[in-house]
Amino acid sequence: MCDACIMRTVAAKLGRRGVLAAVAAAAAAPAMAQPVRTAGISRVVDLTHALSPSFPTFGGSPAIEMEQVNVLAKDGYNMHRLSYVEHVGTHFDAPLHFSAGGAPVDAIPVAQLVCPLVVLDVRAKAAAEPDYQVTPEDIAAHEASHGRIPQGACLALNAGWDAHVGTPRFRNADAGGKLRFPGFRPDVAPLLLGRGAAGVAVDTLSLDHGSSPDFAFHVAWLGAGKWGLECAANLGQLPATGATIVAGAPKIAGGTGGPGRAIALA
Amino acid sequence: MCDACIMRTVAAKLGRRGVLAAVAAAAAAPAMAQPVRTAGISRVVDLTHALSPSFPTFGGSPAIEMEQVNVLAKDGYNMHRLSYVEHVGTHFDAPLHFSAGGAPVDAIPVAQLVCPLVVLDVRAKAAAEPDYQVTPEDIAAHEASHGRIPQGACLALNAGWDAHVGTPRFRNADAGGKLRFPGFRPDVAPLLLGRGAAGVAVDTLSLDHGSSPDFAFHVAWLGAGKWGLECAANLGQLPATGATIVAGAPKIAGGTGGPGRAIALA
Repeated sequence: MCDACIMRTVAAKLGRRGVLAAVAAAAAAPAMAQPVRTAGISRVVDLTHALSPSFPTFGGSPAIEMEQVNVLAKDGYNMHRLSYVEHVGTHFDAPLHFSAGGAPVDAIPVAQLVCPLVVLDVRAKAAAEPDYQVTPEDIAAHEASHGRIPQGACLALNAGWDAHVGTPRFRNADAGGKLRFPGFRPDVAPLLLGRGAAGVAVDTLSLDHGSSPDFAFHVAWLGAGKWGLECAANLGQLPATGATIVAGAPKIAGGTGGPGRAIALA
Repeated sequence: MCDACIMRTVAAKLGRRGVLAAVAAAAAAPAMAQPVRTAGISRVVDLTHALSPSFPTFGGSPAIEMEQVNVLAKDGYNMHRLSYVEHVGTHFDAPLHFSAGGAPVDAIPVAQLVCPLVVLDVRAKAAAEPDYQVTPEDIAAHEASHGRIPQGACLALNAGWDAHVGTPRFRNADAGGKLRFPGFRPDVAPLLLGRGAAGVAVDTLSLDHGSSPDFAFHVAWLGAGKWGLECAANLGQLPATGATIVAGAPKIAGGTGGPGRAIALA
């Protein structure tokens, strides 16, 4: 927006509000309208679903309890008390979740939460086989087309599963209660460790596929000191490479992970 | 890191792990090592304090309750149940916190959470007068030196208060229990609305100064549909202008705000 346009916009807004002090301060400021600092960002994509009691969970319990403890009309402000177990909604896994002595979520270095984002599209395979496990060969094929996964990256698995979040297909429980959704095959973990990746993301309820008997990918990946993001949204809006994820893990002292805010800058 | 260095690192790591499938996949990948995608980012600054039960709160109660509900040795993983009221730790205020019908935290458009960050240094005034209220004249003086606050910005108040977070000085309660720390004078709100700012941040417990009788800045700012961040950390590590804040507000459906992850890219 040009300087003059900004001045007109500001003048219009101030005029509508009629706040003389603000107008005086605005007049005193030099006409050095700065461009919005975008750091090369042209698009912001929210990778986070809204968390409500009905959000699907691995175990099937309500995801969160909310109780309004302050009400505007009586107290002058609104406020709730929240209660939940850490691994609900669009949430992070810290190393401590699956390893004795692993880093809690507050100890993940913040620089490891801002990562080149590589998005692996396995929608077709996931549609054909809900319990699909992504293989080292899938990674190799992606790299052949899009280049090597860079040091410090987050590899995100786009199984198209966020489209199912409001339906039983998201948990996809079979008659015996076993869940069926895609995840990483455990031998992808050493490959990504070799690449120096910092994190992984899935749009399903677990880094391991739904009917995993042993959570072997969790054990290998988190056990190596890396982080994970589960129930990511909107991965389909991103390019295969070139975006950046700002992985807003909650900074709870001693936590094993938890709901946070994951945002992609493209 | 050069291609050959990366290949050596990968080979060393994979060798140690002895995972043949991963080695095969690595060999199949083209040697197209990409530079880390930084989107112009050279530095990541964590604006978030770790949240623990002892983190200071406005009301003086423990900030959070954590109960370990799953233990690795018994269950195969670690997990806690968390319980807290929304406005603890480094946390966000949504319009709903102080306005009837205001947007809940999950309804703040994500693009308004990625903002040019303007840092106003009031450390000297805050050290001299703990209950200091930032004025429109302070903003004007900052703009005279650093240029106009850009459209969509977050204005952050660096009162140097994060240095007090582990001491009674953070709440700074007087003999009568009234808190004394800096905040925004209410008439700053219309000025910032005129600038088209999206959010504000403080390194203290409240957008209003500690002994505010009426939370008038909260009412004006949140009532206008804007967001706030309280108890920010490390603002002193940032330039007056030029950084970007990724304001990772929690996406809790219907929430009035809550602990999140605020990260600055400089």
